[in-house]
This record gives sequence, C-alpha cells and structure tokens, in this order.
Amino acid sequence: MAEADRSALITTDTHGVRTHTCGELRAEHKGESVVLKGWVDTRRDLGGLVFIDLRDRYGLTQIVFSPQANEDAYETAQQLRSEDVISVRGTVAARKDQAVNPAMPTGTIEVQGDACAVLNVSDTPPFVVSTQDESRVDANEDLRLKYRYLDLRRPALQRNLELRHRFYQTTRRFFDQHDFLEVETPVLMKSTPEGARDFLVPSRLHPGHFYALPQSPQTYKQILMVSGLDRYVQIVKCFRDEDLRADRQPEFTQVDVEMTFATEEQVYDLMEGLMADLWADLKDTEIDTPFPRMTYDEAMRTYGSDKPDVRFDLKLQDVSDAFDGCGFRVFQSIIDDDGRIMALPVPGEGDRGRSAMDRLTDYVTDTIGAAGLIYIQQGEDDEVPSCNVSTNAIPQEHVEAAFEQAGAEPGDLVLLVAGPTPTVYEQAGQLRLHMADDLGLRPEPGEGPDRFLWVTDFPLLEWDDEHERYAPMHHPFTAPKDEHLDRLDDDPGAVEARAYDLVLNGHEIGGGSIRIHNREMQARMFDVLGIDAEEAEQRFGFLLDAFRYGAPPHGGIALGLDRLIMLIAGASSLREVIAFPKTQSAKEPMVNSPDTVDAEQLETLHIDTVSDEEDA
Amino acid sequence: MAEADRSALITTDTHGVRTHTCGELRAEHKGESVVLKGWVDTRRDLGGLVFIDLRDRYGLTQIVFSPQANEDAYETAQQLRSEDVISVRGTVAARKDQAVNPAMPTGTIEVQGDACAVLNVSDTPPFVVSTQDESRVDANEDLRLKYRYLDLRRPALQRNLELRHRFYQTTRRFFDQHDFLEVETPVLMKSTPEGARDFLVPSRLHPGHFYALPQSPQTYKQILMVSGLDRYVQIVKCFRDEDLRADRQPEFTQVDVEMTFATEEQVYDLMEGLMADLWADLKDTEIDTPFPRMTYDEAMRTYGSDKPDVRFDLKLQDVSDAFDGCGFRVFQSIIDDDGRIMALPVPGEGDRGRSAMDRLTDYVTDTIGAAGLIYIQQGEDDEVPSCNVSTNAIPQEHVEAAFEQAGAEPGDLVLLVAGPTPTVYEQAGQLRLHMADDLGLRPEPGEGPDRFLWVTDFPLLEWDDEHERYAPMHHPFTAPKDEHLDRLDDDPGAVEARAYDLVLNGHEIGGGSIRIHNREMQARMFDVLGIDAEEAEQRFGFLLDAFRYGAPPHGGIALGLDRLIMLIAGASSLREVIAFPKTQSAKEPMVNSPDTVDAEQLETLHIDTVSDEEDA
Repeated sequence: MAEADRSALITTDTHGVRTHTCGELRAEHKGESVVLKGWVDTRRDLGGLVFIDLRDRYGLTQIVFSPQANEDAYETAQQLRSEDVISVRGTVAARKDQAVNPAMPTGTIEVQGDACAVLNVSDTPPFVVSTQDESRVDANEDLRLKYRYLDLRRPALQRNLELRHRFYQTTRRFFDQHDFLEVETPVLMKSTPEGARDFLVPSRLHPGHFYALPQSPQTYKQILMVSGLDRYVQIVKCFRDEDLRADRQPEFTQVDVEMTFATEEQVYDLMEGLMADLWADLKDTEIDTPFPRMTYDEAMRTYGSDKPDVRFDLKLQDVSDAFDGCGFRVFQSIIDDDGRIMALPVPGEGDRGRSAMDRLTDYVTDTIGAAGLIYIQQGEDDEVPSCNVSTNAIPQEHVEAAFEQAGAEPGDLVLLVAGPTPTVYEQAGQLRLHMADDLGLRPEPGEGPDRFLWVTDFPLLEWDDEHERYAPMHHPFTAPKDEHLDRLDDDPGAVEARAYDLVLNGHEIGGGSIRIHNREMQARMFDVLGIDAEEAEQRFGFLLDAFRYGAPPHGGIALGLDRLIMLIAGASSLREVIAFPKTQSAKEPMVNSPDTVDAEQLETLHIDTVSDEEDA
Repeated sequence: MAEADRSALITTDTHGVRTHTCGELRAEHKGESVVLKGWVDTRRDLGGLVFIDLRDRYGLTQIVFSPQANEDAYETAQQLRSEDVISVRGTVAARKDQAVNPAMPTGTIEVQGDACAVLNVSDTPPFVVSTQDESRVDANEDLRLKYRYLDLRRPALQRNLELRHRFYQTTRRFFDQHDFLEVETPVLMKSTPEGARDFLVPSRLHPGHFYALPQSPQTYKQILMVSGLDRYVQIVKCFRDEDLRADRQPEFTQVDVEMTFATEEQVYDLMEGLMADLWADLKDTEIDTPFPRMTYDEAMRTYGSDKPDVRFDLKLQDVSDAFDGCGFRVFQSIIDDDGRIMALPVPGEGDRGRSAMDRLTDYVTDTIGAAGLIYIQQGEDDEVPSCNVSTNAIPQEHVEAAFEQAGAEPGDLVLLVAGPTPTVYEQAGQLRLHMADDLGLRPEPGEGPDRFLWVTDFPLLEWDDEHERYAPMHHPFTAPKDEHLDRLDDDPGAVEARAYDLVLNGHEIGGGSIRIHNREMQARMFDVLGIDAEEAEQRFGFLLDAFRYGAPPHGGIALGLDRLIMLIAGASSLREVIAFPKTQSAKEPMVNSPDTVDAEQLETLHIDTVSDEEDA
C-alpha cells in the first residue's frame, strides 16, 4: 500500500482504556483478557501468524495474530509497519518453553490478539527507531535533533528522562525533610551583567527598558534569607548567553540552595546527605561520607585543576628546585620570575619510543598550547635517566635530581611543563588527563567507582588581565575569610574566600559559599572590584538596602543538575539528559528556534533589528 | 545610640549552630541548655529584666535577660531593637502559671539567656514588621513591594509560601504515584503568537532572530506524547505579555499535564484525585468526588458564565417567550434578531425601594455596560407584580408571564437583561455576581465550602469580530467532537470541542482538552482558522511533521497554580502567594525591573531601541 493510502487503515478505537502497559504482563496474568496500546516496534510474519512487538514507555509485549483467532485482526496486523500506533484486545497466554525470552521482562507470555484497531499510521522514519538493536541508531545528531520526537522513543533516552524524574523526586523529598521551602524566583528580572552575558527581554510597557533572564537566582535567594525564610531550595532554569562548549547549554537547570545561619560544615553535611540519598535511590549504591576535602592550592599543585579527578593517581610534583642553577635559560628565567617547573611522573613508560614521544610533544604544543615538551626517561635497561634536552644544556645531575624529586623510578617517564602560575598548573593538569586517557586509567562514563571531593579555600579574587583589575573568582557576594580581611586593601590576591566546590570524578557539580551579609563589607567588596558606589547602587541597591534591616548570616550552594544527571546516567553529553537540548550554535533544530518575527512584534516592543553593516 | 553607631553592637557568634528553632521548645525541654538564633520581634523592659520575643520562620520564643544571670548579655539585650538579628544561649525554664501564653505554641516556657551575640542590626524599618499585631501592617502596597524582604517576614505571607511548598510536594508525589514523568521543556523557544503576545529574546548568535518565552509548553508536551513518554507533568513558568488585570501576572506558574491514550473521563478522574490529595494535605478536608459537570451551554444560560460560582443559587431564566409579541420595541427587536431576554429572580427583594433600584440601574449601565435595567417587583403587600416600564409599553399579562416564567413568587424581584448572545448571558452573569455580593451570598475568600465543577462541551471556535474570522476558543490543537466534524466547513460555530475547564468557586482553575493527533485534521483546523498552509508550516511545521510518524491519541490539562494556591490560602490577591510578584505595570519595585541596559549589550544583540517619535 502506498504511504499516502495508509491512513485508510485508521479505525475508531472501541476497546476502551488499556488494562495494562506493555511492560506489565507476567505468567500470572495467563488467561486474562487485556487491552494494550502502543507502537509497533517490529512485525514478523511467520508460519501463517503475525508477531508484533508492541512498545510503550514501560516495555515490550509480543502480540500474536492468527487468522483462526480473528480474520479481521489478522488482516489488519499483516499491514502494520514499525511505529504505527495500535490498540489490541486479546488474551494472555504462556509462551512455549522454547519461545520464552528471558531477556524480556514480559518474555514468558504473549497476547493472542482478537481485535486490532489502528489508531495512527507512521511514514517510514528517517532513521531506525526500533529498540531491538540500539547499535543501529547511527543517524547523525543533527537529524536526530530535528526529529527529536523519534529519537526520544529510544529506551536509552527514555531511561535518562526517567532518571531525571527520579532525581527531582528524591531531591525535593530530601529538602522537604530538612525543612527547606521551595520558592519560585522571577524569570523576568533585571540585567546585572556579571561574568556571563545576559539574555534580555524588551519591555512593551516601558520603552527602552529590558528584563533579563537570571544567570542564577543568587540575589533573590539571599533576599529570601533576609526575609527570614530560613531554608530555600529551588530546581530552577538559569540562562547564560555564552559561546557554547560541548558541555554547555544556554539554558540549564540548577538545584539552588540557601540556608540562614549556615556554616561551611552544615552545607557539606547537607550535600553529602543529598548525594547519599540520590545514589541510594538512583544507583542503588551506598556512598562513603563525609567526602574528602582538598584545598584549592593543593588541588592546583597536585592535580593541576580546581576540579581534580582523583580516581587515578598520576600526581604532579614541583621540581623547580632540582633545576635551580642548572643553567638552562628557559627554566632559569621561569624560576627567576616565580614560575614553576612541574613534573608528571608516568610509571612504566620509561621505554616509550621516539615517535610516541613526538606525538605527545605535538599534543602539548598544539592542544595544550605549551612551548614544547621536555621529558626524562629511564628505560628498564637504562642505568640512568636521560633527558630529551642535551646534557650540555641541562647537566645530568639536574636531570637525575628532577627525576628523583618527581618520585620516579627506573622504568618511568617524567614529563615536564614549565611556566608562570597558575597557567603551568593548568597545562600540567591537562597533560595529566591526557596521559590518563592514553594509559586507560580514566574510566569511561558510567563506569568505575564515583569519587566525590570538596575543594575548599578558594582565592576570593583573580586578576583579570584584560580589564586590569581583580574579578571575583565565584561572585561578588562571596564572603572573604575573616582572618584575611586585613589583606583586602594591600594584597587582595592573597585573600581566601569562604567558598567551596563539590567535585565528582573530575567534574565540578556544584559550588557555593558563605555570603557577605553586612552592608559595609558588601560595599567594600564592590569597591575592591572597581564597581563605584553609583554603579553598585544602580545594580545592587536593593541588596545593599536589604542589608540595612537585619540581614542574617547565610550561605548556600548550587548544583548543576544537567551535568550531575549526565554523570549518574553515565551519558557522554548533556544532550542525552535534556528533553529538547540546543545545539552548539544555540539553535533547536526541531522547532527551528530562534527565528525571525513579524515587524509588528518588534514595533510593539519599541526595538528594531540592526543589520550587520550598521552594526559594524 | 544613633543609627549609624549601632553596628558597633555586632559581635562574633561563638555559640555554634542553633540547637532549636524559635517554634520548637516546649515544657519537656525544661532545664536544657539551648542556642536560638533569630530576629528581635519585640523588646520589653520590665521589672529590671529584658524580655525579647525572638522570631524565626518557625515561631516565637520568649527570652529573658537579667543582670543576675549575665551582666554583659543583659546590657546587650537592653540595646536591642526590632529586627536586629541575634544568637542567644540560655536555659529553658517553665513560665509561672500567670505568665503562660496559651496563644503561643512555646507559651509555657521561656529561655533564660546567659549569652547574647548581635549578628546584625536593623535600621528602623519603613513599616512595622512585628508579627504581634498584623492589623498594624497598613503600609501601602508599593512600599511593601519595594521592601518585599520585610513584607515577607510577616507570618501571613510565610504561611502562604509554606502552603505553596506543600502544594508542590503533594502534586509531585501524586503524579509520581500515577506514573507521570516530570520533564523540563525549553524556556527559550520559538515565537508562535497565538492569543496573547509573546515575550521575545533577541539572539546574539543569529542576528535578527529571536527566541520567545513560552505562553505554555503546549506543543512540547504534545511532542512528548508523540515521543512515547506516555504521561507528562511539569510545574512550569509561563509568560504572557498582556495588559495586566488585578488577577494576572506576566509570568505565572502552571501545573502542566498530558496523557497518551487519554479520554476525558481519565483526565477528570486524575484531577479529582489530585484535588482530593491537595485538600486532604493542605486543608485537612475531605472533598466529594466525582465533581459535578455542566455543559458550557447550561453554564452560560443558567449562570451567565463559563466559570459559574455555584455556591449560591440565583439562577438565570430565559423569559424571551414571555415577552414575544408584547409590543415593546426594544424587547421585540432583540427577540426577532435571535437575542434573548434573561431574568435574574432575586428572592425576597420585591420591596427594594426606588433609590436602591436606581443605584442598581447605575451599576448595570456604568459597570456592566447594558443600555438600562428593566425589572419586575412584587412587594409583600402587592397583589400583582409590576414593571418599571409602564403597562402602556409592556402589557401587564407579559409582565406577569415573565415573573412566573422566571420562577419568582410574591415578595420577589426579577431583574431583566436583554440583548444578543452571548453578551446577554455574560451581562446577566455579572449582575448575578453583583447581587450575590449585595445580598452577602458569596463567601469571602477562604470562607465557606469549596464547590468544584467541570464545565464541558465548549464550542470549538468563537467568532472574532475584529479579524472577521473564527478563532479557537481554547487553542488550535483542541480536537473537535467526531460527531460534529461534518459541520466544520458549513457551520463551524456549531462544532463542539473535546474541551473542559475545571472551576472552583467561580474561578477557572484549569482547562484542557483531548487534542488533535492526526495531521490531516490539524491541517484542516489551521485552514478553518485562516492560517494558510505556508504559515502553518512556518509556525507549526514540526508538529505537523511529528504527526506523520505514529502520533498517538492524547489529551491533558493545565492548572493555574498561582490562582489555585490563592484560593486554597484564602488570599485575595495573587501577590499574596508569589514571593516576588510584579505590579500591574509589570514592574518589580524591589529590584527596579525592567531597567535600561548598556548600549553595548544591545549592540551585541543586533538590536536598537526605537524612541517614541520614531515609533509613531
């Protein structure tokens, strides 16, 4: 039958509501008369019978149509194709022993169909949807995003959305048990550009004025603490108009938490409790608490990252001392400028050959962006370690001292990265991850044990080269440590913050801090950040005002829900855990957004578009 | 002490975490050493002692400071003012019998303070925050919205937000128990202007292109059904850029629900279960289910509203027949033009005097917008009913026939409204509500029994005078009744929809329908609505495409969460149940949004503002 004619198959559904889902029937239902509704996953014609695997969110059930049972139903069934939607009435029967499918929860039974209503037909899908063989889902991602409704029929994606649903349930129950109130904060708020770019929304009623979508409800949740709400939680959409990396979305979801009178320890304890509940409910796994902690400083020096992946060793070693006075100009000038020479010892790779080392050098220069790669090797049969820089340039005693200081042993390889801090740490950290992948030390998504870590004692500020001033490492509402306050004017870079990040398997899954709650302190912080009093008033006057009227101490945290679910699901992309994700160019191919709009709409909003020429 | 100096009172909190909240201590805690933290609600100096009522979200606890117990703490306490934030360490003591306050849950105890740390001080608030006397909260709403953090300290508002929290918990648990998956749909979507105006968001990456904020996730939830998600729920923010009535907000929250293979009965049953759970959990009340049902037609003819308040009688009666042939030109021409003469019988008001009737006439002409008010009265002592139009104009037999047809009895008043439908129904309905208020029949918010009602059998379309075409009464995805399909081309106005509204006490709290799931039917509907194929493809092509690939029958409903909580809370305004509401001009006075933005931000977004002159 031609595709165009297939709609003639559609009939009225006179079967009433379904009695069971397609994942529900078991041997104990034998003999029952049932009504099932779902999608034709596959049809097989075999021995004068038609076998349909009928699919819904809950599973698959085999339906058998025979001309003996019902001629009409059999004839209809013969014309079914994948993804047609049908209603079936029939009787549950036990399968013969040899036909039992232990891989299917419903595999001991089948339904002998005596009525089949076609509720809707399907054209041939642009890619295979059938669940029988997921490896056949080889369509490119653009096509899958355009036909997202078909892609979402795949059990793998449905499992992720179910996991997400259970995440919401567990999380909200947990916070309810801990006296938190879920409060909705505005989506149409005010632009206070800070860090990322705001998405703006022109106001119709107030020409020339704009709302902004929240990058986070940070100031609102602090206001709720000033309001005496005591404990706040919200699972909330946030928005950042940034250039998207693979691992980012312009709209994302966070679990946003704030507590009055909170200490760091209370936040740690609370989050560890939440993670324990999530892992118990979603992964049926008991996790160890409390989580280990590491200072930012140690994380950077040892792992070259503020979100270290501690599932494998490969620790960095500072070998600057070993090269001090070695005469090698590149190293000496770095040491003299307070830079560092960091070593990454790689056990058992002392015999790695020249071409492999050349490829590694290419990676270091091309991807990491270092000037080159100096390394020390001692093969199993070598008497002493040797460096790829000649002993004329770096005397052997320095090479051996560095090899030893790095903690390397005969048979090992030591990779060296040199430069100013913190860049040298970050480059060494990137090299560490690369080597871990190279050696198969880093588990694939969803595999291996989960390792949580608190990273603490962050610097309050970081130097912004472009604007030649200090910028907040987290945000301008983070409290400095009391004992560092005296450095704030003279040596702001040395002030540590009451900030913390929660790290899982090398991914930052959350971050927070104890906040400033004192008006003078907040005003001083704006001043340190180069925000003058007038600007501070214009942007954050409401918060400064609120701090006049009995603002309590408070602190909190925000978890990146999408990434956390991605890690729990063992997915490799955020797009696998978001129902309708956007592409890296912030488009949604299915609905084709963003799109042009009527000139009349813009007129109503008192705005006009500016073409590229005018723009330039 | 001058306000500026009071910050000198602030000291470091060395008391550790609180041991109890301010609502927690009872007689059984007598003798325990406790730490409480909170706000100074009131301070009284009495008999050489300082009494503080300490407040947090959980309640109030009386703290007593005496110079004997601790001189320092006593001296600090003497300087405390309302809304200062303190930490108190002390011992729980039983109050003397005569000091017991049965109105306070903690009223049998007090805490004898032996340490007091001031965590923050408060300036004198712009209006009274103390909870002791809510009637003193007489600040105007603008001021209260500007200082929302102070207003939110009032227990009445905190109770509303707690109620809202419990609403979320109950609702999500209910849907989880019924196999619904909570799925997040995009906030940055595509503009498909329909009914209300969209809020737009300019795209930075795609010049001249815009996202739109969802008026509802209608198409996404339908796509999820096509995806086989089976049952979807989301508590979701929606956005409509409309001129705001008192009872509207530009961003509002709805409980959004969709079910595959759903019948009307399944939706009714589900929602009745949800309401029963909500009333049980939030109001500790058992409600009767199933809810009564009424057709749109009956609702309009009997109550003059598609959301009838059935808590009181005052039913309308069509008395057109009684006046047919009466010779009164106004009535006759209405009858001849298929208009109606509707009577509102008001029992016991037959003796209402002339000046009261004049005021009523003013209301009918000025507020309701009818041409005038004709009425029939029969006082207790009158032998026959008489009309305010002379018997020359309307013969007495018609007056008496109408009085009788209206079901009125001696002593009653019958008000008449005449005109074309449906306007005449709506005017009569408005008059009905006015009379109910006048007679004290309509309960105040939060009082009286709750009366739920399903309104069913809505027309699919309504005539849009302005654009001279049919517009959907709900939205263009609503399924027409199968048995009315043949009228769709010839008499579209007579086609009924598979749509339903849930009404509570005269408020529409939800609405939904069984949807179109067939591509041809959806295309035909767009055609009836005057949306040509090209426009349909541009706006809704993704949905039409999705319907090609096995779209199942589906239907659902959306509940207006803000209004429903307002009704449950017995609040009189949405602003009482939203943490940070906007004003009627869509501003948020606290943060001052919307606001101007930097020219640079607009440039990045490829837009420019258009001033009023250019605009004109």
